[in-house]
Amino acid sequence: MSEVRGKASLAKQAAATMNRLTTEQKNLALLQMADALVKEQASIVAANTLDIKRGRENGTSESMLDRLTLTEKRIHAMAEGLREVVLLPDPVGRLLESFDRPNGLHIEKLSVPLGVIGMIYEARPNVTVDAAALCLKTGNAVVLRGGSAALESNRRIIEVLRAALEQTDLPAEALQLIEDPNRSSVDEMLKLNGLLDVIIPRGGASLINNVVANATVPVIETGAGICHTYFDASADPAMASDIAFNAKVQRPSVCNSMETLLVHDVFAVRYLRDIADRFLAANVELRGCSRTKELIPESKTASETDYATEYNDYILNIRVVNGLDEALNHISQFSTKHSECIVTEDQTNGDRFLLEVDAAAVYHNASTRFTDGFEFGFGAEIGISTQKLHARGPMGLPSLTSTKYRIHGSGQIRG
Amino acid sequence: MSEVRGKASLAKQAAATMNRLTTEQKNLALLQMADALVKEQASIVAANTLDIKRGRENGTSESMLDRLTLTEKRIHAMAEGLREVVLLPDPVGRLLESFDRPNGLHIEKLSVPLGVIGMIYEARPNVTVDAAALCLKTGNAVVLRGGSAALESNRRIIEVLRAALEQTDLPAEALQLIEDPNRSSVDEMLKLNGLLDVIIPRGGASLINNVVANATVPVIETGAGICHTYFDASADPAMASDIAFNAKVQRPSVCNSMETLLVHDVFAVRYLRDIADRFLAANVELRGCSRTKELIPESKTASETDYATEYNDYILNIRVVNGLDEALNHISQFSTKHSECIVTEDQTNGDRFLLEVDAAAVYHNASTRFTDGFEFGFGAEIGISTQKLHARGPMGLPSLTSTKYRIHGSGQIRG
Repeated sequence: MSEVRGKASLAKQAAATMNRLTTEQKNLALLQMADALVKEQASIVAANTLDIKRGRENGTSESMLDRLTLTEKRIHAMAEGLREVVLLPDPVGRLLESFDRPNGLHIEKLSVPLGVIGMIYEARPNVTVDAAALCLKTGNAVVLRGGSAALESNRRIIEVLRAALEQTDLPAEALQLIEDPNRSSVDEMLKLNGLLDVIIPRGGASLINNVVANATVPVIETGAGICHTYFDASADPAMASDIAFNAKVQRPSVCNSMETLLVHDVFAVRYLRDIADRFLAANVELRGCSRTKELIPESKTASETDYATEYNDYILNIRVVNGLDEALNHISQFSTKHSECIVTEDQTNGDRFLLEVDAAAVYHNASTRFTDGFEFGFGAEIGISTQKLHARGPMGLPSLTSTKYRIHGSGQIRG
Repeated sequence: MSEVRGKASLAKQAAATMNRLTTEQKNLALLQMADALVKEQASIVAANTLDIKRGRENGTSESMLDRLTLTEKRIHAMAEGLREVVLLPDPVGRLLESFDRPNGLHIEKLSVPLGVIGMIYEARPNVTVDAAALCLKTGNAVVLRGGSAALESNRRIIEVLRAALEQTDLPAEALQLIEDPNRSSVDEMLKLNGLLDVIIPRGGASLINNVVANATVPVIETGAGICHTYFDASADPAMASDIAFNAKVQRPSVCNSMETLLVHDVFAVRYLRDIADRFLAANVELRGCSRTKELIPESKTASETDYATEYNDYILNIRVVNGLDEALNHISQFSTKHSECIVTEDQTNGDRFLLEVDAAAVYHNASTRFTDGFEFGFGAEIGISTQKLHARGPMGLPSLTSTKYRIHGSGQIRG
């Protein structure tokens, strides 16, 4: 049996037990895991050093190496993250609905764990700990397949976490790490129907697209964000400038940052110059439509491809539109349905935007950067769903549950 | 542009309008559709006659021809089904959650349509009407791809329904029928990410397996049902017999019928003979384990393959087990997680079964045949989900919705 199938089978067996644990048992295990990470931080840093060394030899970029690097401070932060998950309410075992039928059947709808979750992600060892915490807290088993560049770090982290689980009521087999660094181990996971109940990819567009294109196991698609901000004619200019600047510049590398600014012509004539200067001063490259280029001659030309690109960088498309309808059409054409914003003092236009834009999160007068589990008050998130099935937007703990109908009868048969 | 892509694009455009309709507008349209079916029943029957004729020429079985056949009575029943959907509550536009953040953001979670639903099904023209009604009521557009053996019937039904929509506020383009009878049109639908938001297959195992194996669009898997009934040692013998007989014989062709009966040895010694006689008298073929064959010599031998087969027929596997654990293990190994039942007077064992069995619907002392939208009181259902994402068990109207976060700000930016 392959490593992938073998470990997924062990996870499935463990899931049957995970299903029956109390909140206290799960929380105690998370606290043990947190303590173990701190206690074993030296060996984790040592393993991480091997990954960093190999990364340097392979010419990995400094920003990638930074994401990969574990310090004692970062390990303490990971442990703290585990302790925060302890404080979140347990979404499993809730009675969601309960009703009686005329024939006397008493039907209950309960929240239950999903079962076995497959996580496919890149070389960020903190995701290993986050995903383990969220999956175990929700009574799931998890099969982790992190980027091969973080293999030594992940292997040591999982050793430490599994050793911690041995001291608890949770089965260590609920936590599985795929160590095969070849792409074929990902391909195999994608087809493990019957062993994996869901796959959640976390990472860049190519990782996610590969999962969506090849998985036969149900997937929760996360992440891709071509997000827009629209300045309506009546937008407050200071508010508009602050919101757009925040949406683009506060952290350009993340999915909820802005890629394209749409500006009502009336607003553009009066205020776009000042706003463009603020972006230019922050070294943001501007790419504009022809009207934008008239107003902001420093702007390059935005192509259709630019409008369809998630830059995750200091680049911004600007398009001047003749009103809300043109803005809505642009968004409908190019949005990845993640987060969209209108800045307007016109309540009617604000309401229309909130109603008509089809996205996980739609904002009136606030930055798209708030689409995030912590910002929404959900605590740690397993990702931000950009699909419409199961969960949409920031996914907190309840997104990692399913439901089950429990029916109490007294001999009923169907007529 | 291919027929599939062209029609899906039209559906996507229509979906943007469907999103904004009131419940009254949608209900009026459904009533118009019902009236039109009745008014045009002669032409629908005439079209159906062509399908039946072609089916006979192709040697289609009588049971298949029966499912395909439309009579005036059946068309009236379809219209009545439409009118019943009018009476169901509209699940779109509900405020599911609402909360304020410390920074003043007011966040609302709303139910919204899924968008465009792809339905892939077999030669049952009633599914065309059912699916159209449920999708439109929930504000979705729908692309229907029914079995080619029903093409003439479906084409005429959709002509009639679209003509009815022309008299209403709903866009006729929200209702699309793929007429290309080749398998390639199904294959194309399965990959239409960006145009279809979900695909729901309805039909036999091969249709569903093809969709699950090849779709890149998110799928809601429906239908496959290898369902078990377990007689515990303390089961009431009359109740046990009635429940098992109902689960097997009342309608063997459906997914929630029983395929395997598990019997505690103590119960089997006293009561299995009488129960087996009842099945044999109803011409049910019995396939048993070695212990079953000792008690019921007429029984054939059940193989591992038999335990893994959904017969949908007058065939029943019987396995004698030494207790609840062995029954749970068998179910864990062979269940498709649809519907499972324990018959017992022992509350502890009943509760254990309800907790530990992983299935959409788990019964204590009632027939698995109740897993059905009407029986649960949901009204018409689009299918019975056997996956754990999004919806599980009978899927009523709320299963055809997604959610959207609507965020009201006053200039908030992220620090």
